Amino acid sequence: MVRLIVLYNQPDDPEAFDAHYRDVHTPIVERYPKLRSLRLTKVAGVAGRPAPFYLMAEMLFDSDQDLADAVGSAPSAESARDLRSFAQAGVSIFVAPDGADAPA
Amino acid sequence: MVRLIVLYNQPDDPEAFDAHYRDVHTPIVERYPKLRSLRLTKVAGVAGRPAPFYLMAEMLFDSDQDLADAVGSAPSAESARDLRSFAQAGVSIFVAPDGADAPA
Repeated sequence: MVRLIVLYNQPDDPEAFDAHYRDVHTPIVERYPKLRSLRLTKVAGVAGRPAPFYLMAEMLFDSDQDLADAVGSAPSAESARDLRSFAQAGVSIFVAPDGADAPA
Repeated sequence: MVRLIVLYNQPDDPEAFDAHYRDVHTPIVERYPKLRSLRLTKVAGVAGRPAPFYLMAEMLFDSDQDLADAVGSAPSAESARDLRSFAQAGVSIFVAPDGADAPA
């Protein structure tokens, strides 16, 4: 399994962000080919400090090839365009291969 | 389940970082009370872009209370001090409660 992870910075208007994410962005992501699951987590800070991000989206794929197919798909291009309409605060995007119990 | 996630920025000397993480930092983290697992993932960029981080550490706990106990523990304070000795490039730390299949 491999994860495509998107961390969204804190939006100026969380309610508008949530509504757009739910009603517009999620339906686009759910059309990614070979997507196994989309896990959404509102993150929190530690020990009273503010969280460095607002929302974490984890998209799970069975293989690197499946992830590459999804990233190269039309829904992925549509998703990237859509980001500009609601994620102006910025995002961090990366791939997390299977983790391990000891540092590589 | 709840995750404590630490994202490490790209270090100047990845080999020295890896050695310190493996030999010094991991043994400290493994002394956190009630830690269920420590999952380490070297992250990658998407579609040829550089990754925004170097390493993702995910520490799993059974409950918010267990996580709070770990964050308030002596090993956690030791871990925070140790960060200054090898993670000068910076870290992002946050808590991820159980995710869901739809935005909150």
